[in-house]
Amino acid sequence: MKRNKFCIVVAAMLFACSSVLKAQTVKSPDGNVVLTFALKEGGVPTYELRYKDKTVIKPSRLGLELARDKHASKGMEETDLMDGFVETGHNISSFDETWKPIWGETATIRNHYNELEVALNQPSSKRNIAIRFRVYDDGMGFRYEFPQQRELNYFIVKRERTRFAMAGDHTAFWIPGDYDTQEYETQISKLSEIRGLMKTAVTENSSQTPFSPTGVQTSLQMKTADGLYINLHEAALVNYPAMHLDLDDKNFVFESRLTPDPVGNEAYVQTPFNTPWRTVIVSDDARRMLASNLILNLNEPCKLTDTSWIHPTKYCGVWWEMIAGGKPWSYTDVLSVHIGITDYTKVKPNGTHPANTNNVKRYIDFAAKNGLQQVLVEGWNIGWEDWFGHWKDNVFDFVTPYPDFDLAYLNEYAHSKGVKLMMHHETSGSTLNYERHMEAAYTLMNKYGYDAVKSGYVGDMIPRGEYHYSQSMVNHYLYCVKEAAKHRIMVNAHEAVRPTGLCRTYPNLVGNESARGTEYEAFGGNAPYHTVILPFTRLQGGPMDYTPGILETRLNKWCGNQSYVHTTLVGQLALYLTMYSPLQMAADLPENYERYDDAFQFIRDVACDWDDSKYIEAEPAQYITVARKAKGTDNWFIGGKCDQNGHRSVIKLDFLDKGRKYACTIYADGPGADYEKNPSAYVITKKTVKRGDTLRLTMARGGGFAVSLMAEK
Amino acid sequence: MKRNKFCIVVAAMLFACSSVLKAQTVKSPDGNVVLTFALKEGGVPTYELRYKDKTVIKPSRLGLELARDKHASKGMEETDLMDGFVETGHNISSFDETWKPIWGETATIRNHYNELEVALNQPSSKRNIAIRFRVYDDGMGFRYEFPQQRELNYFIVKRERTRFAMAGDHTAFWIPGDYDTQEYETQISKLSEIRGLMKTAVTENSSQTPFSPTGVQTSLQMKTADGLYINLHEAALVNYPAMHLDLDDKNFVFESRLTPDPVGNEAYVQTPFNTPWRTVIVSDDARRMLASNLILNLNEPCKLTDTSWIHPTKYCGVWWEMIAGGKPWSYTDVLSVHIGITDYTKVKPNGTHPANTNNVKRYIDFAAKNGLQQVLVEGWNIGWEDWFGHWKDNVFDFVTPYPDFDLAYLNEYAHSKGVKLMMHHETSGSTLNYERHMEAAYTLMNKYGYDAVKSGYVGDMIPRGEYHYSQSMVNHYLYCVKEAAKHRIMVNAHEAVRPTGLCRTYPNLVGNESARGTEYEAFGGNAPYHTVILPFTRLQGGPMDYTPGILETRLNKWCGNQSYVHTTLVGQLALYLTMYSPLQMAADLPENYERYDDAFQFIRDVACDWDDSKYIEAEPAQYITVARKAKGTDNWFIGGKCDQNGHRSVIKLDFLDKGRKYACTIYADGPGADYEKNPSAYVITKKTVKRGDTLRLTMARGGGFAVSLMAEK
Repeated sequence: MKRNKFCIVVAAMLFACSSVLKAQTVKSPDGNVVLTFALKEGGVPTYELRYKDKTVIKPSRLGLELARDKHASKGMEETDLMDGFVETGHNISSFDETWKPIWGETATIRNHYNELEVALNQPSSKRNIAIRFRVYDDGMGFRYEFPQQRELNYFIVKRERTRFAMAGDHTAFWIPGDYDTQEYETQISKLSEIRGLMKTAVTENSSQTPFSPTGVQTSLQMKTADGLYINLHEAALVNYPAMHLDLDDKNFVFESRLTPDPVGNEAYVQTPFNTPWRTVIVSDDARRMLASNLILNLNEPCKLTDTSWIHPTKYCGVWWEMIAGGKPWSYTDVLSVHIGITDYTKVKPNGTHPANTNNVKRYIDFAAKNGLQQVLVEGWNIGWEDWFGHWKDNVFDFVTPYPDFDLAYLNEYAHSKGVKLMMHHETSGSTLNYERHMEAAYTLMNKYGYDAVKSGYVGDMIPRGEYHYSQSMVNHYLYCVKEAAKHRIMVNAHEAVRPTGLCRTYPNLVGNESARGTEYEAFGGNAPYHTVILPFTRLQGGPMDYTPGILETRLNKWCGNQSYVHTTLVGQLALYLTMYSPLQMAADLPENYERYDDAFQFIRDVACDWDDSKYIEAEPAQYITVARKAKGTDNWFIGGKCDQNGHRSVIKLDFLDKGRKYACTIYADGPGADYEKNPSAYVITKKTVKRGDTLRLTMARGGGFAVSLMAEK
Repeated sequence: MKRNKFCIVVAAMLFACSSVLKAQTVKSPDGNVVLTFALKEGGVPTYELRYKDKTVIKPSRLGLELARDKHASKGMEETDLMDGFVETGHNISSFDETWKPIWGETATIRNHYNELEVALNQPSSKRNIAIRFRVYDDGMGFRYEFPQQRELNYFIVKRERTRFAMAGDHTAFWIPGDYDTQEYETQISKLSEIRGLMKTAVTENSSQTPFSPTGVQTSLQMKTADGLYINLHEAALVNYPAMHLDLDDKNFVFESRLTPDPVGNEAYVQTPFNTPWRTVIVSDDARRMLASNLILNLNEPCKLTDTSWIHPTKYCGVWWEMIAGGKPWSYTDVLSVHIGITDYTKVKPNGTHPANTNNVKRYIDFAAKNGLQQVLVEGWNIGWEDWFGHWKDNVFDFVTPYPDFDLAYLNEYAHSKGVKLMMHHETSGSTLNYERHMEAAYTLMNKYGYDAVKSGYVGDMIPRGEYHYSQSMVNHYLYCVKEAAKHRIMVNAHEAVRPTGLCRTYPNLVGNESARGTEYEAFGGNAPYHTVILPFTRLQGGPMDYTPGILETRLNKWCGNQSYVHTTLVGQLALYLTMYSPLQMAADLPENYERYDDAFQFIRDVACDWDDSKYIEAEPAQYITVARKAKGTDNWFIGGKCDQNGHRSVIKLDFLDKGRKYACTIYADGPGADYEKNPSAYVITKKTVKRGDTLRLTMARGGGFAVSLMAEK
């Protein structure tokens, strides 16, 4: 009945709008999400989206401006793909399939949608395009499709003009739009307040190019006054620049702003071609936003035939002592070096280089003892003396270790203990150089038994003039993932473009950074709400290598750094659940873990791959509680994390197996715990629980909780 | 005595110039070339050059403007390296060495110069630089040197401001300065006339970026009213952008204009670093300009330890029937293709694709029969359907042959006949894509027995925004040469940056195009004087793959092309001598050579590597006659080529061995021969000659002659 009413509403609305030439509507399988496509006067394609009778996207125009190619024949004018269209047909269809991710939050994922494909012709240019909408119960995605045709064989996108017209001055959880970084603190404000906050929101970064006083990044989370959660992002970003959103803050209309190339064009297209999906996730239940698989579903199925070598991984690494402790990545203190020329055996070591054989052995021993599978070592390779900020092209060779890092021995030693080393490839943004060395670098990894690499793109890009998220750089990142797959190597790329669900297609892309990670806790700190907004925003596209587990939150307890982690100790444990990733670091120093060994037990125990996940409660930038069932076991783990205001959770254990008992260990903030005043107060409680029991847990300010539920046999 | 007089002149001149703070003078070994360096008022470095008491370069300032790096620490201002210098020392030294090129015009080359090194300090920036001058009997080179130092570790060159002040309104043989092409017809005019001629001089090209109405390219040849020949170019262009010259045409002062990067900077430098040499070749004898080894001498010695695999080569190829005959490089006529996706076994062949197994066999047979060592095949690999003008990134894969090209069989067949195939790698300017495939491409060459590659960079560059001659692209071309050397592969790069003598250091760089080649004879023609100016200009930096030997100069005799070659038939033979190259093509079709088999005998006979070369007569853009002694033999070959006015040559055979007889075959323009009216008239005369004899030969309009002198045993 509700559906019928809705249909009348839509019809009435369309009727009221006299300029509509042609309209098509498609609903989600549950009928709650309704997408209407219409050609408006002048042949302008538009769409609108409603959820349970509420407006999500007001009628918004679609289209692309094209650039005239200098190579175009004389007299050949370019016609924008903005208007003058007629509909030549449309098709509505349904799809329902369940697939198994190689790794993920659940063992299976249902991909269920209704689809509307609209075929358009622009008589003035004789060109045909299509717009395809897929409507899910939790939102929709659409993309432009360009079939191969004589009149549209190659073209240049000068400006994609996709609009998302909001129905009001929503609350937005946003970071500044920037072509080069995503490492900004999330701002919480009304849309109308973005302009006023932009200047302070743009904090300094190693590479940054903000583009507009009202420009924001995807994935953008919003909440409406009437209780809708709306997320704008994109899916399947392949061979196209990353999308940002520029806000008309008088009318609350976002328009796409793609990352341009050095000469100002956005994309170079050869047909047949489909753009990435522009996605709108919507719900009136914040938990469903987190449980959404819409973006994964809009990506192509796995393209790797053999995925047996891909595995979720817990790891530690030689990293925090540099990031927080100020130790150097470099082996020497010389002013500058020349790869292939500087003779490192003849320079004076600085004596404080942590990526040395003895120290790495210590980490290997620690990993082996605690069930961590890998040890990341940063600073192992030559070139760190002057790696950043000098526009160095040939900055690293990715194969030559510093003299104090015994590559062969350390790998052998690690393997003898059942541990692997994790490779590190910082590129310094010099992608040309990385590609020149990549094959040799991956071959070296294969030779010594590395199967995972953390790569990095700190600083401005080379080729000079390119931005981090341009079409060319997007292609680079995927090129790396594909080449790595040929070598059976998993990739965790930092400072690369934000993920858009490509891990479905290339599951060796096990992680990205693409947001402020834990490292910022050593640079003044992340806001306490940071980790309870990221799952709504950054994590929609794919997992983040957030590197949690800093149990010694007061850095000055072991080094001179006066920053502190803006969570309680227990809050750090919670992140292994609330920040889903197949790659989870235990990022603190071994000696810090020894000091909190009982709390560290949770990190030892927790899984990083799951058969099931239940979001128990959630509110953006306030709190998230999730229960997850460890892959291939009957064990569950629960994590809860909150903002600076604390939170009380009531967790009904109705997801446990009937009749089974579980050894329950609760890691809770202790009395008086507070991320600022008393971060290390924690209480560990053990008991036996069963289905139907209820846990009542209190999270401190900036705190959380972590629970393990081991099924008794 | 003459020297003494000169010294007085210099001293008087310096004395007259009260603003000179400090001056140093160094002379060439023969005393004819005199270089004076002076710090002028304000600490401005300047130099001037004289030859036999005549001014070559008037006092000209030196210096570089730097760009402030966005990464520079706040408050750190950038100081230009333009003025405010004090001299902290200087050093004058001499060098005399004779070295053996791997291939060349002579068996040995003498490198004999006097050197002035001036050390400068800029007190305001605490920076030290040096300027090094090497003065030869035939000119001089100088470069900027930047020692490694705390205050000058990395810097960005915004604009190199090297000046070359001419002493008058000289006659210049110039082509328009352009960041993307060198394929312009040479203009002959006064310096003051350049501006007026520029517009018509800039003819259409597949990629072009002229930068100034008075901008010209190096190598620039000039002639002064008092009979001096002056050439401006550069040597050892490594990790720096190519230099052009921008003319102040009121004062006749050239200033360097380097090819910028996409954001407008010229070069990114890490010290220690030396710029390329800026070269001035000077003589009052045009023949000495051609015999000059100044640019080779200013390059580093050979860096390859094993050069046994590098060999001069005569070759033919599947090429002219496409260039002139209009046949396709592509196998199909489909609109566009996608590398790795398009299934060529399922598309309809166009049936006219010349790079097919049968046709290539015909060329192999032809090569084997006529002593040509290699057969170039263009259009052998997939991707040619839409290779140009579409900004395609992944345009070729360089390893997949078209279905009608049997790669394995053809190589086997060629090898069975003592012939090799020559590889072809057109990149379409997509250097990113080429580098991604390069290792596989070279590996394929090794597998099948190719040892030489002709590469090409037609069209605009990818990375987009880059120009053909930028620092980054200069690095790309050398990267290819070095990577090829690892695979024992010789490189002949077309549309790459103009050569600057790097073939001394990397002798597997056996050729470049970097000027209008013979192909332009099929596109309307080259001026008849084209090949008698190129040796003064383009060839100063290294050999050109000019692809001579078009004996059927009237293209419409075998195809529909109405262009004609702007030489006589014999003029084509002469080019094998006058256009020195270790790589010489017999570029015409086998069937055309059959028609002129008696004339073709010269191409069969002529060598392409030499123990000695004697320039007998020369005048820029008028005529060149040269005699060369074939490597490892006692045979000589003589070639003479002239412009559209004809020329009479008197050749005294005083270079032949005393007492030895030579079987002399003279290929001369026949009666009435004329490149326009009667190109195919030729006379072949045989006689016996000896040292001291004289040959009197007449070149027709656009004609020439060719002589072989086979020593009798």
